[in-house]
Amino acid sequence: MSRTPLSPDALEAALRAIGAERYHILHPFHRLLHDGKLDRFQVQAWALNRYYYQASIPAKDATLLARLPDPGMRREWRRRIEDHDGDGSAPGGVERWLALTDGLGLDRDDVTSLRLMLPATRFAVDAYVHFVRDRSILEAIASSLTEMFSPEIISERVAGMLRHYDFVSPETLAYFTPRLTQAPRDVDFALDHVREHARTVAEQQAVLGALRFKCDLLWAQLDALHHAYVTPGLPPPGAFRRPS
Amino acid sequence: MSRTPLSPDALEAALRAIGAERYHILHPFHRLLHDGKLDRFQVQAWALNRYYYQASIPAKDATLLARLPDPGMRREWRRRIEDHDGDGSAPGGVERWLALTDGLGLDRDDVTSLRLMLPATRFAVDAYVHFVRDRSILEAIASSLTEMFSPEIISERVAGMLRHYDFVSPETLAYFTPRLTQAPRDVDFALDHVREHARTVAEQQAVLGALRFKCDLLWAQLDALHHAYVTPGLPPPGAFRRPS
Repeated sequence: MSRTPLSPDALEAALRAIGAERYHILHPFHRLLHDGKLDRFQVQAWALNRYYYQASIPAKDATLLARLPDPGMRREWRRRIEDHDGDGSAPGGVERWLALTDGLGLDRDDVTSLRLMLPATRFAVDAYVHFVRDRSILEAIASSLTEMFSPEIISERVAGMLRHYDFVSPETLAYFTPRLTQAPRDVDFALDHVREHARTVAEQQAVLGALRFKCDLLWAQLDALHHAYVTPGLPPPGAFRRPS
Repeated sequence: MSRTPLSPDALEAALRAIGAERYHILHPFHRLLHDGKLDRFQVQAWALNRYYYQASIPAKDATLLARLPDPGMRREWRRRIEDHDGDGSAPGGVERWLALTDGLGLDRDDVTSLRLMLPATRFAVDAYVHFVRDRSILEAIASSLTEMFSPEIISERVAGMLRHYDFVSPETLAYFTPRLTQAPRDVDFALDHVREHARTVAEQQAVLGALRFKCDLLWAQLDALHHAYVTPGLPPPGAFRRPS
């Protein structure tokens, strides 16, 4: 481990290098998804599992919100919860995700009850909420920085899915459009915070570790989907299964 | 959901039925392992990852110990920690697991640093510790009941590994021998406790759910190993890799 702290620019470059190596845009399941190589059932499995991640993001953000020390930071973080939960008139991200699962023909209760979800999805997503509760505020904020990389994966995903799947429409993919503007705005705050506050070698290592952890948990979700629904295609007992 | 509670015998039968359907003895990775179908590298990957489960069991048991209300229950549960951590002269289960990883030719620091472990292993194992911290004491105790099924899997594993792998010796498998007597003794207490205290339908459902959860987290660990090291054989970024 280096004994000299990185400059803010070098730290940002190191964060971006983690994304270039570990972000789940590189995962084979993502490539199959956006290249049109999955069938409707496999896309359903992805959307059904990913729902738990979407539905847990407000819990993750509220957990951090409860720990933030000042009104300015809390206002910034509260906006993330508003983005996901909506305001009662405009739908939030969780509701827009359900428009996707509806559009794919999934039963609403099958999705929201979580009863068909892969256990590995639950373990990975819950690890995120626990991380934000248990680690330093700096690490908790840094773990959100995968959003630096999300506009690219969203663009690939939306374009690829619309081109290749006749069971997908712009309406069912409405989840993603607002994320293209929300994510960069969220990143502005989180990245500035990390550049400003991760000053020592130990803090910088912690921040880099937090981003690696977050990449790992996104990757692990696709590993589990790949194992259960692509190769070898063995869903664990009780999980979502292809209709026979 | 039934409105009438099960008798203690019927509850025990329902618990055993969960094992018959979901215990990881049924997982293809276990079958490959004990049928001699894995190579030394794949067995190393299993032992390296499983180390984190072994090493976390005392944390799991201490978490529950801290919540138990009376000296008798705490004495009973404390013995589990003694089994795993040893007494400073006789080695405990964690140390015996390291004899296995040593015997397989793994570097001790590669194992104990956890740096090559699959992230999915961490998420599943940590979920177990968190479950025991966050759920009712009854559910926490019930989640240990996979030990009802462990003598069978241990017998299969030891016999199969000794028969098929020339890189495995009785000494490297010394972890397992004491478990054949410790597990049934532990089960006696936990199963009696659950039979006695899970009286309402809600309590019984919670107990059955706890055992399902535990089976799921054991299964998920083998799913992750299967994906990373068997089919398609794609370890996530940073994880243990076959020497090139």
